[in-house]
Amino acid sequence: MTKINIIKIGGHVIDNEQSCKDFLSQFAALSGKKILVHGGGILATQMAEKMQLPQQMLNGRRITDDATLQLVTMVYAGWINKNIVAQLQAQQCDALGLCGADGHVIQSHKRVSKNDFGFVGDVDEIAVEKLEALLEVFDTLVIAPISVDTDGQLLNTNADTVAQELAQAFAKNYEVDLTFTFENAGVLLDVEDNKSLIRTLNWSYFQTLKKEHKIFDGMIPKLENAFKALQKGVSVVTIGNAIQLNQLIKGNTGTKINL
Amino acid sequence: MTKINIIKIGGHVIDNEQSCKDFLSQFAALSGKKILVHGGGILATQMAEKMQLPQQMLNGRRITDDATLQLVTMVYAGWINKNIVAQLQAQQCDALGLCGADGHVIQSHKRVSKNDFGFVGDVDEIAVEKLEALLEVFDTLVIAPISVDTDGQLLNTNADTVAQELAQAFAKNYEVDLTFTFENAGVLLDVEDNKSLIRTLNWSYFQTLKKEHKIFDGMIPKLENAFKALQKGVSVVTIGNAIQLNQLIKGNTGTKINL
Repeated sequence: MTKINIIKIGGHVIDNEQSCKDFLSQFAALSGKKILVHGGGILATQMAEKMQLPQQMLNGRRITDDATLQLVTMVYAGWINKNIVAQLQAQQCDALGLCGADGHVIQSHKRVSKNDFGFVGDVDEIAVEKLEALLEVFDTLVIAPISVDTDGQLLNTNADTVAQELAQAFAKNYEVDLTFTFENAGVLLDVEDNKSLIRTLNWSYFQTLKKEHKIFDGMIPKLENAFKALQKGVSVVTIGNAIQLNQLIKGNTGTKINL
Repeated sequence: MTKINIIKIGGHVIDNEQSCKDFLSQFAALSGKKILVHGGGILATQMAEKMQLPQQMLNGRRITDDATLQLVTMVYAGWINKNIVAQLQAQQCDALGLCGADGHVIQSHKRVSKNDFGFVGDVDEIAVEKLEALLEVFDTLVIAPISVDTDGQLLNTNADTVAQELAQAFAKNYEVDLTFTFENAGVLLDVEDNKSLIRTLNWSYFQTLKKEHKIFDGMIPKLENAFKALQKGVSVVTIGNAIQLNQLIKGNTGTKINL
């Protein structure tokens, strides 16, 4: 089976120029086929402030209205995506950047929920055969988490979920390593202390840590994504610090998720 | 020889929702391989105003400083490119959107000039073999006029020139029809009167009209691009109204350029 690395880079790493550079130089040097999924970081928020775009919130979550959809499409699929691609190109990594609307590779539907979060997409289908064809032309794809529905409506989509859905879709014909990278060393017993890194985490330990409130907030859906990916045939799922990408890929650091 | 249509859509057409829709439905229905090159329209200017980004001008031309480069990359390669792609997808036209940085398909260098216009790129090379490979996967490519230099610097590039350079690059192995579309019926003897359309224009007539000041401003570089393309082997070059795309492609209207 051909191997593919699917790597998600988190927002705070993108915001930090040096961390982002460190990450990209390691990513550029990875051999074989690879996909990078990125989010947006603080830039979208900064742009919204500059444009005096009021951010509508509902239960503490941002609503993607018309103007916010335009903003995130510009920032994620425009500035961040093309900058990552250009930086990779400068390091002889021949990358192609795209979003889920391109080639209709990530089809989603507007989230159905009693609360209307606006133009937010839940993934229905990954056109994996088209991505495979693109990977025959370019070893590296860089994907912004904007998807599209069957009516051509662009939808803002969670980048962790995009990475997980891509990994699952490729798992049918590929040996997939899925790596979620961010600013921490991995899943931590104490979020303030990188030394409290959990090296391996299985489902029952996850349940225990949740009960003890040692895992909370954004880490819970990230881990749920990770377990879902393993259940669907992804070979290895690792969570760790973006600037340690090489060591993460080798399994030398970060948190390895087991079923 | 395989035929390919390379079509440039002008800014004012993109600004007008109905015209843009009319154009895209005709474009979507065109058979065979095709490339759409788009500019940005008024949206970049509107965004600059919203963000209170002062536009630096030099001799009446905009300077692409850091902030402006970020803005045009967001607007052209982000919002406009992905919206066009999504609209085409909704009409069963399986398009892939990209900019010149993707796959390093449009390599340029920062313009060398006694006046520094900032991050403006002049095209050095089109990676036509990569575009051909992408056209094996998707019949339709949508290209934003942002290019990249060998150091990974994104550069703002004239969309007419991008269309012309693409057409020339494909002319080596393809029968290329290059169509520049905008809001007018074609090259006009009187810019106020669409009925004064010139149906065919050759080089010597162009020189005469320039001398008589009947052709001026942005039309001059557009026509120079057109003649250059023909000299480099492009089969047909037509200029005309975007909402008459079908008739333009058939040669039933617009201005046909001859050497």
